[in-house]
Amino acid sequence: IKLVMAVIRPDKLAEVKRGLAEVGAPSLTVTNVSGRGSQPAKKGQWRGEEYTVDLHQKVKIECIVADIPAEDVVDAIREAAHTGEPGDGKIFVLPVEAAVQVRTGKEGMTAV
Amino acid sequence: IKLVMAVIRPDKLAEVKRGLAEVGAPSLTVTNVSGRGSQPAKKGQWRGEEYTVDLHQKVKIECIVADIPAEDVVDAIREAAHTGEPGDGKIFVLPVEAAVQVRTGKEGMTAV
Amino acid sequence: IKLVMAVIRPDKLAEVKRGLAEVGAPSLTVTNVSGRGSQPAKKGQWRGEEYTVDLHQKVKIECIVADIPAEDVVDAIREAAHTGEPGDGKIFVLPVEAAVQVRTGKEGMTAV
Ligand SMILES: Nc1ncnc2c1ncn2[C@@H]1O[C@H](COP(=O)(O)OP(=O)(O)OP(=O)(O)O)[C@@H](O)[C@H]1O
Ligand SMILES: Nc1ncnc2c1ncn2[C@@H]1O[C@H](COP(=O)(O)OP(=O)(O)OP(=O)(O)O)[C@@H](O)[C@H]1O
Ligand SMILES: Nc1ncnc2c1ncn2[C@@H]1O[C@H](COP(=O)(O)OP(=O)(O)OP(=O)(O)O)[C@@H](O)[C@H]1O
Ligand SMILES: [Mg+2]
Ligand SMILES: [Mg+2]
Ligand SMILES: [Mg+2]
Repeated sequence: IKLVMAVIRPDKLAEVKRGLAEVGAPSLTVTNVSGRGSQPAKKGQWRGEEYTVDLHQKVKIECIVADIPAEDVVDAIREAAHTGEPGDGKIFVLPVEAAVQVRTGKEGMTAV
Repeated sequence: IKLVMAVIRPDKLAEVKRGLAEVGAPSLTVTNVSGRGSQPAKKGQWRGEEYTVDLHQKVKIECIVADIPAEDVVDAIREAAHTGEPGDGKIFVLPVEAAVQVRTGKEGMTAV
Repeated sequence: IKLVMAVIRPDKLAEVKRGLAEVGAPSLTVTNVSGRGSQPAKKGQWRGEEYTVDLHQKVKIECIVADIPAEDVVDAIREAAHTGEPGDGKIFVLPVEAAVQVRTGKEGMTAV
């Protein structure tokens, strides 16, 4: 069992959800986050004052997968989230040791 | 050290907090999230227009535990979060390699 | 590759971001969360009614690091987030098995 965690552009969420459903991994958890990658902070102006935007609004999605290979899920997210411009995001894979479905009490891969 | 991560119904949070305290694991971090499991999207009507609710409001809780077995924490959450209806949520366990308490600088199991 | 996850005081975020940039790990993802550690719930009064504040506003930061040792990142966060008062927060390190940068398709340590 793996946790595929991705931080993507908010306006790519619908496309990513579609890509995940198509690859057979429709379940996901979505969190509004902000963040920065390696790009330098962006400077803006507001009423004549200069300010720095250093945290950008992003969406974090978490998909726990068992029967679908994590690589397929990563590929589906990468394709759906891609624009080619800086800020497209990152995808990480973490190990998961156990899973339980609350309604049924099912455990392990069948719980995911 | 383990991270027990659960996505539950928002209106079960109080009961889950009580269950965790009773099992000796009161510490937790709570995040407002939305998500979907394996159930099909729900259709609704608004001013004559049909729309699809495909992300449901949920609460994510994260409990890092060291001295209490992760299984006991999982069981406490499962019992407190259970209604028997679809949408009750999922619980996952991830490995944690290190922990530090910021105030004291304590490390490892005593930091959790 | 490691995930350094920290839950800190919201008013320490700017200092922590500075500390991370200084240690060469500027990338991070920030989430508004609430939580409780081991301290007892705080009692308050509102219009004559007593109530209990048992979840405190915190900020969760997640830094995935590859070329910088996780320990250095942990130390940078610990120093920047420290006040010495209860509630300063916790830092955890989790293993990460894979990373992909969406824009370039880069994988592994160079993707972080
Ligand atoms: N190493 C990291 N740790 C934690 N979060 C990260 C990391 N790298 C990126 N993120 C998250 O992903 C978001 C998008 O990152 P971004 O796509 O800008 O990465 P990048 O490395 O700067 O790539 P690009 O050059 O394409 O912009 C960030 O705002 C942040 O929330
Ligand atoms: N595999 C998963 N990956 C990430 N998040 C998940 C996963 N499964 C469930 N979730 C999260 O848990 C929430 C509740 O899931 P839910 O209880 O509906 O799961 P389910 O498998 O559909 O079970 P049920 O048949 O009892 O509804 C979802 O809204 C989502 O946020
Ligand atoms: N074991 C844990 N699991 C999950 N989240 C935790 C855990 N411990 C602390 N946290 C998160 O960190 C926040 C701050 O914790 P806090 O600093 O109060 O920890 P503490 O152990 O009580 O230390 P102190 O005695 O210095 O207050 C909590 O509100 C919670 O969000
Ligand atoms: Mg960038
Ligand atoms: Mg469901
Ligand atoms: Mg405390």
